[in-house]
Amino acid sequence: MTQIPPVSIYSMTVPVLINAMKNLTHILSKAEAFAEAKKIDPSVVIEARLALDMHPLRRQIQSVSDTAKGAVARLTGTEIPSMADTETTFSELKDRLAKTIAYIESVDPALFDGAESRDVVLKLPNREIPFTGYSYVVGFVIPNLFFHVTTAYAILRHYGVELGKTDYLRGGL
Amino acid sequence: MTQIPPVSIYSMTVPVLINAMKNLTHILSKAEAFAEAKKIDPSVVIEARLALDMHPLRRQIQSVSDTAKGAVARLTGTEIPSMADTETTFSELKDRLAKTIAYIESVDPALFDGAESRDVVLKLPNREIPFTGYSYVVGFVIPNLFFHVTTAYAILRHYGVELGKTDYLRGGL
Repeated sequence: MTQIPPVSIYSMTVPVLINAMKNLTHILSKAEAFAEAKKIDPSVVIEARLALDMHPLRRQIQSVSDTAKGAVARLTGTEIPSMADTETTFSELKDRLAKTIAYIESVDPALFDGAESRDVVLKLPNREIPFTGYSYVVGFVIPNLFFHVTTAYAILRHYGVELGKTDYLRGGL
Repeated sequence: MTQIPPVSIYSMTVPVLINAMKNLTHILSKAEAFAEAKKIDPSVVIEARLALDMHPLRRQIQSVSDTAKGAVARLTGTEIPSMADTETTFSELKDRLAKTIAYIESVDPALFDGAESRDVVLKLPNREIPFTGYSYVVGFVIPNLFFHVTTAYAILRHYGVELGKTDYLRGGL
């Protein structure tokens, strides 16, 4: 990240999403190696949770993907690519992130022009939340993305995977 | 967040920092009420960790403050206000966040003009990391801020404080 793009809704969003997903892929590789070294069934790691009523690691990764692809599609007014939540292995979870990154990189940056002031509606199961593109990125996309990235990290760290801040930030350092 | 400021290094950073700290203050209030209701010594909650070699809740809050005030000072080329890490109560931790927010709000937004391409050097104990203002925000400030906010949330959630995503995102929704 030595280039300085002009500050725009694109440059405040897309590099953040991609960087986070690349670092999360690296973290998943370390978790996979940990399971292998300790002869732990990978599904035990993938289904690990920080609390009984919190989502497991698998769902954290899927939520990162959903937040990222939803952001790009909503900001550009294009259709959100559907990805079935069927991942059960580390390979499949890393592939989900790779596919999400590939999708984001395939979207023409010019489609983001003016997205900061465009209406964005987030449809939740029980209600709809109206945003502008800007408030959607600042109030939802970025906090929600890192919520799930960090929760994935916290699950792994809690159960003993050797991770440090440089694994989490590495793309940025 | 219904206003649409022009997208700038200021608008991609300052509202994110302030929003995260306001929501974290709300989360700390819920943790404080939990300790009171369960008759748990507040210091037990403040010193809780997700793993023996991770920092406790207290340090997560201090790191949020350090990340936020460091970002504003480095981007504006002004001095980082020093805050001693002496907090031992929920009131003091919430006050640390309030003081950090007040500091950020006291900085003239005009000082951020052009900060995206300014050199920023992050001095760590063992090395210095050169950034541009833009790469510093995208690669360090935002991921690091949410790392510590979410880890604070995860510590509390892991130990049974009733928190949900709306407590974490509330300013944005």
